[in-house]
Amino acid sequence: MSRFTHLDESGAARMVDVSAKDTSIRTATATGRVLLSGEAVELLRSGDNPKGDALGVARIAGIMGAKRTPDLVPLCHPIALHGVKVTLEIVDSGVEITCVVKTADRTGVEMEALTAVAVAGLALIDMVKAVDPGATISDVRVEEKTGGKTGVWTRS
Amino acid sequence: MSRFTHLDESGAARMVDVSAKDTSIRTATATGRVLLSGEAVELLRSGDNPKGDALGVARIAGIMGAKRTPDLVPLCHPIALHGVKVTLEIVDSGVEITCVVKTADRTGVEMEALTAVAVAGLALIDMVKAVDPGATISDVRVEEKTGGKTGVWTRS
Amino acid sequence: MSRFTHLDESGAARMVDVSAKDTSIRTATATGRVLLSGEAVELLRSGDNPKGDALGVARIAGIMGAKRTPDLVPLCHPIALHGVKVTLEIVDSGVEITCVVKTADRTGVEMEALTAVAVAGLALIDMVKAVDPGATISDVRVEEKTGGKTGVWTRS
Amino acid sequence: MSRFTHLDESGAARMVDVSAKDTSIRTATATGRVLLSGEAVELLRSGDNPKGDALGVARIAGIMGAKRTPDLVPLCHPIALHGVKVTLEIVDSGVEITCVVKTADRTGVEMEALTAVAVAGLALIDMVKAVDPGATISDVRVEEKTGGKTGVWTRS
Amino acid sequence: MSRFTHLDESGAARMVDVSAKDTSIRTATATGRVLLSGEAVELLRSGDNPKGDALGVARIAGIMGAKRTPDLVPLCHPIALHGVKVTLEIVDSGVEITCVVKTADRTGVEMEALTAVAVAGLALIDMVKAVDPGATISDVRVEEKTGGKTGVWTRS
Amino acid sequence: MSRFTHLDESGAARMVDVSAKDTSIRTATATGRVLLSGEAVELLRSGDNPKGDALGVARIAGIMGAKRTPDLVPLCHPIALHGVKVTLEIVDSGVEITCVVKTADRTGVEMEALTAVAVAGLALIDMVKAVDPGATISDVRVEEKTGGKTGVWTRS
Repeated sequence: MSRFTHLDESGAARMVDVSAKDTSIRTATATGRVLLSGEAVELLRSGDNPKGDALGVARIAGIMGAKRTPDLVPLCHPIALHGVKVTLEIVDSGVEITCVVKTADRTGVEMEALTAVAVAGLALIDMVKAVDPGATISDVRVEEKTGGKTGVWTRS
Repeated sequence: MSRFTHLDESGAARMVDVSAKDTSIRTATATGRVLLSGEAVELLRSGDNPKGDALGVARIAGIMGAKRTPDLVPLCHPIALHGVKVTLEIVDSGVEITCVVKTADRTGVEMEALTAVAVAGLALIDMVKAVDPGATISDVRVEEKTGGKTGVWTRS
Repeated sequence: MSRFTHLDESGAARMVDVSAKDTSIRTATATGRVLLSGEAVELLRSGDNPKGDALGVARIAGIMGAKRTPDLVPLCHPIALHGVKVTLEIVDSGVEITCVVKTADRTGVEMEALTAVAVAGLALIDMVKAVDPGATISDVRVEEKTGGKTGVWTRS
Repeated sequence: MSRFTHLDESGAARMVDVSAKDTSIRTATATGRVLLSGEAVELLRSGDNPKGDALGVARIAGIMGAKRTPDLVPLCHPIALHGVKVTLEIVDSGVEITCVVKTADRTGVEMEALTAVAVAGLALIDMVKAVDPGATISDVRVEEKTGGKTGVWTRS
Repeated sequence: MSRFTHLDESGAARMVDVSAKDTSIRTATATGRVLLSGEAVELLRSGDNPKGDALGVARIAGIMGAKRTPDLVPLCHPIALHGVKVTLEIVDSGVEITCVVKTADRTGVEMEALTAVAVAGLALIDMVKAVDPGATISDVRVEEKTGGKTGVWTRS
Repeated sequence: MSRFTHLDESGAARMVDVSAKDTSIRTATATGRVLLSGEAVELLRSGDNPKGDALGVARIAGIMGAKRTPDLVPLCHPIALHGVKVTLEIVDSGVEITCVVKTADRTGVEMEALTAVAVAGLALIDMVKAVDPGATISDVRVEEKTGGKTGVWTRS
């Protein structure tokens, strides 16, 4: 068998069979950041007023993005999502994004967490691109996952 | 008006009116990369055999992702896409992704190009995550856009 | 914590964690109506011939709409749906719509029932709008829900 | 031909041919309301703090809902949307919703405006349903449309 | 260049650039059939009563399927559809399906017509599968296309 | 009750209630073929080089199509998919397609397997249509299903 579990022995893509795996509580935490110009950061900070939707739009986009993961990532299983939290924090270099996804199902949810971070980042760039056309998404990665047969994995 | 064009004067999100803009040929090029362990790079390289689908899956995911942009990015206009090309190149540190999008419509296509790169990156991570759970998407950004009133913009 | 369960203590939106809730049989019944001109009602009644698709289109749209709920309602959990029934009845003032949704899952299905009613209403308006541009959707609401920790709730 | 333009002479549903219609600027305004308990209104008002996402979620859902119209309403044409604005105002009886949609295309956009109002209403109910399970969507209807061969239509 | 226009000179998939093609009226007609047992045909015929939804569901599914073509067929351009008609006729061997699609856009619509036929066939099988688990979709193909640079093509 | 289980006693479509059915391992195998000209077969064979995406695109489209089944087939339940394998084999008359779907859920997965075969066939036609505009999808049907109350069913 290929060491890439999504490929069979001939190298052809497939959705790998997980029907024999147990349903259990699984979580994944992913992070990433959007690097922004000082001007864009300043505008985001000053825009944090009662109706300022800029970060709110990105947060909603991230949560909805997690739900679209099996539509976007070809070999991902359609999976129940039982909790999604997306946090955005403005820092001097841009915006830090964190997503925590929780499920009680047969596969891990790290792709859902990564997708939420990436889509939140895309939505944020869309908000600021008129001001900062060079905005950049970086460091989108899994920080921790728990549950399933492999148990806890933490980025070292 | 807010300098964030997607927000109105009260800070509320909207899809900005572009009906008065001209239809013209517009292009956008975005790039990004997936940083991988040496082991994962080695497997991708050796897997480049007659039926090896690993990069192919990511390429298709990127092209399809470009088409899903208005579903993912809340304030993006649904827009005609007249050409999408996604290129993946294996390098020592991982995989470099480039996407070029072309349209003849009323708005730019930089969000579509960025989305294609991000989704190709997510699909690639999904392929390799059993081997490299620390795979990271970085440097997703617009390199160049042409067309429309603002003409050519190139990352400096 | 906010009394709005979809907001955390800071007011930020999230998909609330339901992984600890039990899987149980849950149902929800929602109703609504489309108010129509007498002429439109008359045409719907006379159109109820062997191949008349007008109400059939709305019924199918409602059932499919129930399945799209997590795509439309940002914080809704993607959930199994085990039965959906949409009923449309022509009355003198328009069309009465009823939807019953049943599941065996961790959250209630009232949003799915409401979405089915609203989408059936939208599809019906689309069918009659050339004849009755003033058609109006009203009184879309939950009538009853059963199952889960809170048991039976009935509109009083 | 049937007077319902979406049905052919035999009563069968179809997407009516608009290829001969002119591309022109068209707008549609739709309104609706969500009727809420006094307690829910009070919470929405007090929740209108710096990060309160309640109305923001409904606004985004409405804008994204407009884009999903051809997926939801079976016989709607997929159409370019060039501007979408969703406004929510808290009043004593609940929340008033207004949506204005603009396009330069071959068909009117009243279904898109109605869909945006309905989906914003559904998302708002989802936010408040733990506090007010009896929340009701009412009076979803077109107020005005402009453009195309029929010109301006205003609800009388 | 590859003779497969969706592949570039290296064999990699792409959405081919059509931005230089003219917008013109284009049509495509596709046909197909669902082969059924005599019992299933009999039931479909007897079910053709005032509220019998069996063929109606397949017709609606076909029309909606045409709109989903770019979501399903990876390299298809998202395209305006200006008219879709799906016809189903019960014959002794099953059901004959015909779809005519019309557009005023830059690419042909034969994939949309084929997709409508295939999805209508799938929906019909879903309706009858409890009675006829061996139902078969066959002969899904383009009969004629018009418009564009190549003009009229008719199956010989 | 109607013998078509998706229709109620009045002939109206519904998503039939399966909440009382057991969760169990279920599989379905469907097959089909795309009939091609000799020239197209030759090109597919010669294109089977290191980066030739032609069959790979169809395979991915089929797997993703399986996941879209409840979006396409109006009365299908949204269902967990735990394994999907799509195989394409070039033969003298065209390409043979086989799909095996596996789940641990409350309903069978034959519609998912059929949808995967049909969508793979559509994607393959899209790849070759410039060379072979007469390509035809045929013989899309269930070969075997296992699991659930009815146990094993095999095409005789």
